[in-house]
Amino acid sequence: MKIGLMGLGTVGTGVVHLIDQNGRNIEKKIGEKIEIKKILVKDPNKKRTPLAEGKITFNAEDILEDEEIDVVVEVMGKEHPALEYITKALQKGKHVVTANKEVIAKHGKELIKLATEKKVHLLYEASVGGGIPIIRPLKQCLAANKIYEIKGILNGTTNYILTEMKEKGLDFDDVLKDAQQKGYAEADPTDDIEGFDAARKLAILCMLAFNKFVLPEKIYTKGISFISKSDIQYAEEMGYTIKLLAYARIDEKERLEAWVHPVMIRKTNPLNGVNGVFNAILVDGNAVGEVMFYGQGAGMMPTASAVVADIMDVKNHIVIQNGCEEVDLIPIEDTFSKYYIRLIAFDRPGVMSKITGVLGNKGISLLSVVQKGSLGETAEIVLVTHIANTGKVLEALKEIEELKEVEKIESVIKVRED
Amino acid sequence: MKIGLMGLGTVGTGVVHLIDQNGRNIEKKIGEKIEIKKILVKDPNKKRTPLAEGKITFNAEDILEDEEIDVVVEVMGKEHPALEYITKALQKGKHVVTANKEVIAKHGKELIKLATEKKVHLLYEASVGGGIPIIRPLKQCLAANKIYEIKGILNGTTNYILTEMKEKGLDFDDVLKDAQQKGYAEADPTDDIEGFDAARKLAILCMLAFNKFVLPEKIYTKGISFISKSDIQYAEEMGYTIKLLAYARIDEKERLEAWVHPVMIRKTNPLNGVNGVFNAILVDGNAVGEVMFYGQGAGMMPTASAVVADIMDVKNHIVIQNGCEEVDLIPIEDTFSKYYIRLIAFDRPGVMSKITGVLGNKGISLLSVVQKGSLGETAEIVLVTHIANTGKVLEALKEIEELKEVEKIESVIKVRED
Ligand SMILES: NC(=O)c1ccc[n+]([C@@H]2O[C@H](COP(=O)([O-])OP(=O)(O)OC[C@H]3O[C@@H](n4cnc5c(N)ncnc54)[C@H](OP(=O)(O)O)[C@@H]3O)[C@@H](O)[C@H]2O)c1
Ligand SMILES: NC(=O)c1ccc[n+]([C@@H]2O[C@H](COP(=O)([O-])OP(=O)(O)OC[C@H]3O[C@@H](n4cnc5c(N)ncnc54)[C@H](OP(=O)(O)O)[C@@H]3O)[C@@H](O)[C@H]2O)c1
Repeated sequence: MKIGLMGLGTVGTGVVHLIDQNGRNIEKKIGEKIEIKKILVKDPNKKRTPLAEGKITFNAEDILEDEEIDVVVEVMGKEHPALEYITKALQKGKHVVTANKEVIAKHGKELIKLATEKKVHLLYEASVGGGIPIIRPLKQCLAANKIYEIKGILNGTTNYILTEMKEKGLDFDDVLKDAQQKGYAEADPTDDIEGFDAARKLAILCMLAFNKFVLPEKIYTKGISFISKSDIQYAEEMGYTIKLLAYARIDEKERLEAWVHPVMIRKTNPLNGVNGVFNAILVDGNAVGEVMFYGQGAGMMPTASAVVADIMDVKNHIVIQNGCEEVDLIPIEDTFSKYYIRLIAFDRPGVMSKITGVLGNKGISLLSVVQKGSLGETAEIVLVTHIANTGKVLEALKEIEELKEVEKIESVIKVRED
Repeated sequence: MKIGLMGLGTVGTGVVHLIDQNGRNIEKKIGEKIEIKKILVKDPNKKRTPLAEGKITFNAEDILEDEEIDVVVEVMGKEHPALEYITKALQKGKHVVTANKEVIAKHGKELIKLATEKKVHLLYEASVGGGIPIIRPLKQCLAANKIYEIKGILNGTTNYILTEMKEKGLDFDDVLKDAQQKGYAEADPTDDIEGFDAARKLAILCMLAFNKFVLPEKIYTKGISFISKSDIQYAEEMGYTIKLLAYARIDEKERLEAWVHPVMIRKTNPLNGVNGVFNAILVDGNAVGEVMFYGQGAGMMPTASAVVADIMDVKNHIVIQNGCEEVDLIPIEDTFSKYYIRLIAFDRPGVMSKITGVLGNKGISLLSVVQKGSLGETAEIVLVTHIANTGKVLEALKEIEELKEVEKIESVIKVRED
């Protein structure tokens, strides 16, 4: 089997090393040798692994036009030109393995259609959970189930930050700096901390679990940059842990609820034990009940592990690609949740009645209200609602923010008991 | 696709219902209908689900000799005559799906060989973790890895008992009775509570993960019936949780360490959050690192979910069966572990020095020693060793048991920091 590798960064280098290191075993399992014939890169000045010697090219056509290459492995990242290369490879009848979340989340539907027409594989296990096996378990092992809910911790950077904040009592900015130094967060961490990375993976999971296609930018997404030490502490006191959750559910009318949002989860939830850079995906099926997959969602070798498994699968299986259909997203305003709200108010008589009055007018009832130590002029107020309509909550938050008694709404976090 | 179902008990009935309930979806996915043509049972007087009407037979040949039946689904249980029926079905060129741990653990090697010769599938996902997807993830998703360690909570009954003992502060016998009433434990619970069920599943996992065949009865197996409220309490005080762990590891010389034993695990171990009837399997691969699979290891619908996924896979994939080789088990005496030992001694001067003397003579050093409130004539002593040779520990335990100062060794539990 001859491979054209596009990209030799973190993941590409891992793939080259893994095929070298476990090559004998791999050959035994699939009955032939995986040979990396050519490797596409961009920068002529970078030093490469000795295993890449004699294979480097700077021209994608060298791979795409090579008749001997059966499988194109795209690990360059970014939407362009990866999309164009993948498309061309499929058109040429080559199998494609990719780790590219952006391309699959945004263009998966057409690419799957093209692959099905051309009777070739399009495999993308590494794009969702790095090394965590999730795509095959969903497509094969749970094939007899109707899956109706997915909850995931899909981003290692944010989970690392939340874990450190909790364990060391540190504030967001300090942990982020530390994570950047350790290589757990990028120089520009926006994609991770604002939840966009998790939203892309969630979009891919919706495609797999529900056969529903939804663009990641349509998924209501809220990151963790606003979360402070004191939110973590309140959560702890109330018996919860804060996690950045990616959530999707299919309702009785086959409509999709999907969002990425910080959530306080119960200590008894299996996701509570998922710490540091680890990821996990909890799936609910009508026969199997709750199933969870846990592991490293990123990193050189875990990701390479998933990419190479996909390459091996090209030989092992006949092509099955399920199409998927466009779906109506339930507007976030029409969904329901408990909410935790922390705000700073001026410590004046009547402030509490004004705030609770706004909520009452919207029909939102409260589970608990705590007002803590007035900080000179201001006081910190923490409200937890009963299950409420999110649209009403968002309206109420806007009104509360405009009250002259309120300085700032600091945090809005969902609360779940499951 | 025409199916012959052997057995219509818990799992068989689940299979019939699941195919009925999710039939449309299943048909869409595999491109044809699954039709259950005949169902083998034993007892002519039992009431059956209406879905079985007109299909019941009491003669296995009706299924085995039916040329139209492509797939035999064996969910009768017990070693015989299940083994003979499976063998005959494979010889006749029929695919076989089974949930039978005993048959696969004891005869998997020959059956796999036979299936490979006959170019048919032998699928047994449900035999290991009920509904938890584990076989495909191991064989496909982690195919590029060398797997070197497996740790599992493979038995729901014992995990339920340990969880209840901890959460409600109850003693073993009381929880067992309650579990039997609730249907979580059988009338004769020996197979579960003595660890034999876990040992069978571990043997199957060794076959899958390491391609090594080991008979379940050769796996050193210790159950949980000796564990008392006070062990649970000591564990808690020291920061551990007691779990019945099934453990297997391949060493550098390709020898296998495998055992089932109660273990104190750290609260930070992902298995710590696995409570009640849930099972989980933690796999360590050289590329992917630690991966965990979690879900319900038993029950009607979860198990049926795995059986039906196997049936669907018969149509979806070409046959790949990897052979496996006999393996040298590392004798338990040559393995190493920390141990927690709780014993009752007569409260006489010199008793502690005698006990610690025995351990010292065997080269076993101690991490901690606690002697608690002398109970009239006797005192409870809890020892925790550093990592020690298990052979020496077993010898020392024998000598300590023979000391006239010692009434009884109550508990021996492994302790792990990972
Ligand atoms: N890193 C992870 O842990 C991880 C986990 C899961 C999924 N992924 C996904 O895997 C993909 C690769 O990630 P990575 O971390 O390996 O990225 P990376 O380290 O930045 O490597 C990218 C590689 O692609 C090459 N490349 C980029 N644009 C190119 C172009 N236009 N023409 C030719 N070569 C080009 C680069 O060439 P030069 O070497 O010449 O710069 C480099 O070798 C991304 O889609 C990412 O989302 C990564
Ligand atoms: N139950 C679970 O949660 C679970 C989970 C994982 C794996 N499994 C495995 O699945 C298998 C079935 O378990 P189960 O709980 O469904 O067992 P079960 O409820 O005892 O049902 C056994 C069925 O097989 C039939 N049967 C038994 N011996 C027979 C014979 N000699 N000839 C014809 N029919 C015979 C019985 O017939 P009658 O109905 O006439 O008595 C019954 O319908 C076992 O291997 C078990 O280890 C079970």
